[in-house]
Parts: sequence; structure tokens; C-alpha cells
Amino acid sequence: MIKVTIWNEFLHEKTEEKIKAIYPDGIHMTIAEFLGKNDDFVIRTATLDDPDCGLPQSVLDDTDVLIWWGHMAHHRVPDEVAARVQSSVLRGMGLIVLHSAHMSKPFTRLIGTSGTLKWRDGDKERIWCCNPGHPIAEGVPEQFVLDPEEMYGEYFDIPQPDELVFISWFKGGEVFRSGVTFRRGYGKIFYFRPGHEGNPSYHNENVQKVITNAVRWAKPIKRIDELVAPMTEALE
Amino acid sequence: MIKVTIWNEFLHEKTEEKIKAIYPDGIHMTIAEFLGKNDDFVIRTATLDDPDCGLPQSVLDDTDVLIWWGHMAHHRVPDEVAARVQSSVLRGMGLIVLHSAHMSKPFTRLIGTSGTLKWRDGDKERIWCCNPGHPIAEGVPEQFVLDPEEMYGEYFDIPQPDELVFISWFKGGEVFRSGVTFRRGYGKIFYFRPGHEGNPSYHNENVQKVITNAVRWAKPIKRIDELVAPMTEALE
Amino acid sequence: MIKVTIWNEFLHEKTEEKIKAIYPDGIHMTIAEFLGKNDDFVIRTATLDDPDCGLPQSVLDDTDVLIWWGHMAHHRVPDEVAARVQSSVLRGMGLIVLHSAHMSKPFTRLIGTSGTLKWRDGDKERIWCCNPGHPIAEGVPEQFVLDPEEMYGEYFDIPQPDELVFISWFKGGEVFRSGVTFRRGYGKIFYFRPGHEGNPSYHNENVQKVITNAVRWAKPIKRIDELVAPMTEALE
Amino acid sequence: MIKVTIWNEFLHEKTEEKIKAIYPDGIHMTIAEFLGKNDDFVIRTATLDDPDCGLPQSVLDDTDVLIWWGHMAHHRVPDEVAARVQSSVLRGMGLIVLHSAHMSKPFTRLIGTSGTLKWRDGDKERIWCCNPGHPIAEGVPEQFVLDPEEMYGEYFDIPQPDELVFISWFKGGEVFRSGVTFRRGYGKIFYFRPGHEGNPSYHNENVQKVITNAVRWAKPIKRIDELVAPMTEALE
Repeated sequence: MIKVTIWNEFLHEKTEEKIKAIYPDGIHMTIAEFLGKNDDFVIRTATLDDPDCGLPQSVLDDTDVLIWWGHMAHHRVPDEVAARVQSSVLRGMGLIVLHSAHMSKPFTRLIGTSGTLKWRDGDKERIWCCNPGHPIAEGVPEQFVLDPEEMYGEYFDIPQPDELVFISWFKGGEVFRSGVTFRRGYGKIFYFRPGHEGNPSYHNENVQKVITNAVRWAKPIKRIDELVAPMTEALE
Repeated sequence: MIKVTIWNEFLHEKTEEKIKAIYPDGIHMTIAEFLGKNDDFVIRTATLDDPDCGLPQSVLDDTDVLIWWGHMAHHRVPDEVAARVQSSVLRGMGLIVLHSAHMSKPFTRLIGTSGTLKWRDGDKERIWCCNPGHPIAEGVPEQFVLDPEEMYGEYFDIPQPDELVFISWFKGGEVFRSGVTFRRGYGKIFYFRPGHEGNPSYHNENVQKVITNAVRWAKPIKRIDELVAPMTEALE
Repeated sequence: MIKVTIWNEFLHEKTEEKIKAIYPDGIHMTIAEFLGKNDDFVIRTATLDDPDCGLPQSVLDDTDVLIWWGHMAHHRVPDEVAARVQSSVLRGMGLIVLHSAHMSKPFTRLIGTSGTLKWRDGDKERIWCCNPGHPIAEGVPEQFVLDPEEMYGEYFDIPQPDELVFISWFKGGEVFRSGVTFRRGYGKIFYFRPGHEGNPSYHNENVQKVITNAVRWAKPIKRIDELVAPMTEALE
Repeated sequence: MIKVTIWNEFLHEKTEEKIKAIYPDGIHMTIAEFLGKNDDFVIRTATLDDPDCGLPQSVLDDTDVLIWWGHMAHHRVPDEVAARVQSSVLRGMGLIVLHSAHMSKPFTRLIGTSGTLKWRDGDKERIWCCNPGHPIAEGVPEQFVLDPEEMYGEYFDIPQPDELVFISWFKGGEVFRSGVTFRRGYGKIFYFRPGHEGNPSYHNENVQKVITNAVRWAKPIKRIDELVAPMTEALE
């Protein structure tokens, strides 16, 4: 069993009709629905307005892989929640960071950079796989189209990723490192670029396939209680 | 001083009028001309039809950085010449691999993969920098256009590069890892995607800037005589 | 099911009594025995003296992960067999390279470097994990000892690995990148340093655990028939 | 000219006689002395007890490469100073992190991990180069000894480095990734393991050579004013 917690800011979907039409119960519920088709996934959701953002330590301790979508309210996530997520990743929890969460507190704390990028609403995206042997690319075609989608363009201020899996092309003239992995401590992180709240990308079967694969890939090998710097005896 | 040897297959330019018009004395001479503006570069050229491809061991031993352009006659480069180049790189010589040399013998021997990719003549290319702090990107704008240029598209069968410096966008819908570095042994390798023999890309100031920067970056730190697997005494 | 083929040079074990005592039926049979405890592994062996080295294309096409041990007869492996293995890896087959196979033809063709290193018989080795979240390290302690083992020391002439999983310490004063991964084409490669034919390292439970994990990690995501460089139509 | 600012916590050297004997004017002044032999370096120092830690924005803006040594008072560096250093690195400033600064605020903010490791006072260290073609290794022997030195051992909680240049061996049985590079934003970071305040490692010629090389390597290619996420117009 893989325990998945899907965190969503869940603000756009409550106030904007156009977005509500795409994700009636919130982006998190759409993700929960397609992930729920996997019999070995146990799924929970949490949102910004839940007490403690729905992410007390007990939930994180019971989570194998955390999915994070946020956009307009990154600043409303308390620093202690972001620190708790960061610590959980270092101690083994997997983290999947979606779209506008490139500037979320948990992600930027873990990568150490600003996460800034170029953007523009309403473009056409084609996602290419440049690492077809990677587990996250399993069953995904060599390229697929999302139209319309928001454009995200380089320079994307992230560290050099451990692995580059997808690169996006945009009709408007930009490219973007769209699927990238980072290891931090005992935990694995996958950033995936789609989808803008105003576009139905989480209903796309290839986007769903990538996120499903990423959950399996990010599952912890080992969880530890604490990262310490111990004084040790000589071995010889 | 940096000793640069520019190797060119030099076949297209001798037989096709359209190409001769762009590179009257061969691609190697155009590259020699713009690199020659650097007072600290000592430049030599060599071509396929020279005895021993113009690359006897003595020339390689006297070369800090070798530039390689080839296309239709990769198979005519003798295996022993390719092996000599490979060995020189492992022992410290820098190597800059241009455009269609992605399938040249020296490059594929050094990377271990096929170097295959998608291609199409006559597209429009925009090259984006995704590593603006890299020495090879110094003074190069965040993006620049080559129009027309041949399209090269993913999946590009190369190992994960040590560093990804440039990504290309093509109007026809493709993306490509256009500027990538690899370390092999004591030597440094830079692959750079432009330019097709039928397009004037080596006359482009940004392409020239990148290749010039790459020469400085690929200059050896150290040259060694031989890579051996020595039996050694215990140190303690 | 994961189809594993274990290739062993199988020369030392037939002629040297001391080695025969450790691996009576050959190193390949000891590896086959411990891997065989996994119900989902289907195991085959092949050796240098088999026709076509036991590795005709039909066997490679039916192999998910190939394990390779060789030492004194690298030169006796025909180039066409090495090329066949290389091509199979690029098209998806996993490859696990053991100990002295660091200078085997399939490995050096795939990495592009010489594979040279320092060595000395009869040292004490301690293998440390520096990537505890990696699937190949699952269930392996933070360090374990092999005593005696042959020393392998830096500089190890390999490309920068995609992932560094283990580093060895030797009593005689050396260190070594002992567990390293490389992706080539659609295939995954893991090099693991132990064990010398004169030491019983393949009877060690941690060595067995690492190799077992590596088989699961190297299993192909996708196999393809051919790597080609196709001319393609514009998508837009 | 390369403008170097050397930051030192400067506490041990003021209160402990044994340490004062090794670094009479502080570790920063010893580093300033050997770096000062380079005619093209302009050197400044700053310490914890200086106003604003000696690192107001004006100093950082006038610094090409910042060197950081800290140990017992990481917590006394204000968060705003650490944030200022982080931001300066992302916008191009080089950073060299020494020894116990593995847990300093600027470093852990930039790498996103805890920086924890094993440690023990009074061991013998041998530093091996595993990347002899790297500019930071120029002129450094394949291995050199520091005896005594404090032991630092794996698992060292850092992200996978962009480049691994040095690995340490310790007589007590440990290994350590001792020289590692990270790119963050427009800036370059080098972590180097020596030296403990109670050992004279910064008087060692090879340690001095490595730090000198690192300064040249970390020099900015480009400085920018701000990292922003701009909305942009379509290019085509």
C-alpha cells in the first residue's frame, strides 16, 4: 500500500465559476479520483483552510507521498507547516510538486532557489519525454499536447535536477524543463509543470499517468526519525 | 595560449554550390576566422581528405581543444583515428562536437550511445539558455533565433549530460537539448547543435560566442600520457 | 517476472583450486542461487566458452537484466558480442557490471572511458552508503565490511555517474566509488565493485541484497526494436 | 580582479589558547594571507561580531566570491543575513563553504537539506581526487594527507552534488564526499571539508591550492539584480 496525501490550496475553485466548472470539488478531488483507481493507493486530501493546513505531523508521518498544488496563497502557508513538510521529505517522505507550486514554501525550501520562471496564460503546450527509460515515463507517449495551457518558460530557477524527464514546447516560442527529479535527504521529489487552474489538464490521461507513475517512484525506501550529526567511535 | 584544431569533413562545401556560397573555404575556415580574433588562440585546421585525416598523434598531442564537424562521411573516418581522438580526450584534450557530428565516431565512442535524434530541414530555431551561470553561456542572451535551421528533436540518444546549458525550440513543434557537457577521463566535451551546412549559422554572432566560450571552458587542466590500472602498495 | 541472465567468464573457477573451493560451480552459479530465492526472477546463465558466449541475440532479446563478471579474458569476448550487448542496453535491457568487469568490453563501450583504477590484492573493505533513499540501497546497512577483499582505488576512470550509491573505504588508505548508476539509451546500468574471485564476497548477505535490489531497479520500463534518426514532419 | 570576502565566526581563536596558537589572528586572516599572494584577488574579511556580521548588502554586492567558516555560533547569524547571502548567491555571487559550515544557515538554506554527518576529533585524513580534470583540482596531487584532522563521515546529508571532486579517507574507517559543487541560480557553490579549528589545515599547501582554485572557479559569469517571475508576451 502507498499512502498518498493530496494537498490543495483550494481557493480558485471555490470563488471562480470557470474554474469550478473544471474542478467542481477542487483540484485535489480530481487527482484523488484518478489516483483512486489504483487498488494499492490509500488516499487522503488536505487543504489550506483545514486546521493546521490539514498537515499535522501525525498526517505527514502517515503519508508515503505528498502531492502539493498551490498558487495565490503560498504566503498563507505557515512557516512551521512548510518546515514540517521539508523535514518529512528529508526523513523519507516523497513529494510531488505541481504547476504553480514551483514557488510554494515547501518546494523552495527544499531546492534552495527562487523557483522563478516566465509565464503567460493561454498557450499551447507539447510535452516531450527526454528520458524514456525513466519509471515516471512508463507508458507515456513520446510527446503529448495540452491545449490550452499556461506557458511556463526558461530560465526556470531550479538547481540542476538529478534527472530531466520531460521538456515542454510552447507555441508562443518558449521551452521549459517540465518534469524534473531531485533527491533531498532520504526523500524523492518530482516537479511536474501542468496544470493551470483554468485548464482541464488533470483530466488528461497522460498527465494522470505521469502523476500515478511519480507516486510509485517517490514511495520511500526508508523512513528515519531524525537527521542528526552524531559523534562516533573509530571503527578500526 | 590555447591550441585549437578545427576538423571538418569538408565535402559538402566542395560539391554543392549553395553550401559553397555560405562557406566558400569550408566550415572549418569560417570557424577558424572568428576564433582567430582571440589573440590567445593558436588555430590549425584538418579535414577528412588530409593524410591520416590531418590528425596524426603528433597533432592531437599538440592540440588543447579539438572541434569536430562531420555529416555524410562519418564511416570514412578510420576507426584508428576515432580511437586516437577518444584516447586523447580521456588523457585531457577538450572536444567540441558540432551539429551533425552527433553521430560521428569520436563522439559516439565517448558517450556510449547512438546519438540518434529526429530531424527535418528548414525550420526556425530559438535557443534558450537554462544555465545562465555557466562559463559557456557568458555574454550570450537568454535566447536567440536561427532562421532557417535544420530541426533536431528529442529523444536525443545521449547519456544524461553533466550540465545542460541550452535547449532549442523549433517552430515545427520540437524541443532539443542543444548545448550539453560531458566529462570523460581528464577531458571535457561540449556538444552544440547548430549548424546545418546549408544554413549560415557559423556566421551568427551568438553561435560564435558560444563556440569561443566553449574553447576556453574545454581547455585541459592536465594532460597525462596513459591511463593505466596500476597495482599499488598499501599507504598505511 | 524479471528475466535475468548471468554471464561469467568462468575460467578462474575451473583451474585454480583455491577459487574453486569458494565458487565450486562458478561465480555465476552462486549468483544464480541467491537470486533464485526470488520467486519473480527467471534465471539463466551463460559463459565465455558457450557457443557465441551464450549470448546470441535471441537470449539478449529474452533478457530483462544481464549480469556480467569477467577478468582475465576480456579480450576473448568477440567485438560483435560486446556490440550486441551494448545495443541491447541502449534498447532497454538492464546491465549489472561486477568487480573486474570494469574493463570489460560491454562496459567500456557503454561508458566511453577506460575504466582504469588502482588495485591491490588482500585488503579490508568497508562499503558505505551515501544515498540511503536509493532503491538499490533498500535494506542495506549504512556500512558493511568485506575482509579480505581486493582493493580498488581512485582515480576510477568512469564518467560522472548519474547516481553515486556506495563508496568504499580500504584499510590500506584508498577510497573508491563502489556503486554507481548510468543510464544509456533506454537501459539502466549499475556497476558494483565486489568481488574478487579469490574472496567469498558473493556469499555475503549484503552483497547479495545489493545485487538483488539492482536487478529490480534495472528492469526495463520499455524495450524498443531499433534506435534510428528519423526525418519527421512538422507537428504544427 | 576577483573580489573575495572571507567570513569567519572568529570565536574559538579569541578564547582557546591552543587554537589561537594555530590561527593567531583568526582563520580568516590565515586564509586572507595565502589568497593575498594572488595579485588579481582583492580581499576583505568580515566576522560575526562586526556590525551586521560585516555583511551588509553593500559588501555582498561588492563581493565576487564569499568564503564562509562557522562552527559553534551558526544560530547567532541572523536569518536576514543568511537570506541576504542566499539571495546574493542566486543572483551570481560565488560561495565557498568550509568545514563545519556544513550546518551554517547560508549553506543549508541553499542546499535544502540538513547538512548532518558523522564526526570525531583527532583522526588522520587522506583526500583523494576523483575528478582530476576539474579546475578546482588543478595542480593538486592525486591524494594528500592531513594528520591530525577531525573525521567527517557519511551519510553526509547533502543533495547529489553537481560535481564530486574529492573524497576523504579516514584512518578510523570512514569516507566522506569532501569536495562538492552545487549551482544555485546564477551562483556557484563549493563545499570543502577541511579544516577543524584545532588543526593547522589552512596552513597546508594543498588545502590552500584547492581554496585558491575554487575562488577562480566560483567567480561570477553574470550578476543580476533580481530573480522575478515575469509575465511575457508570445514571441511568435
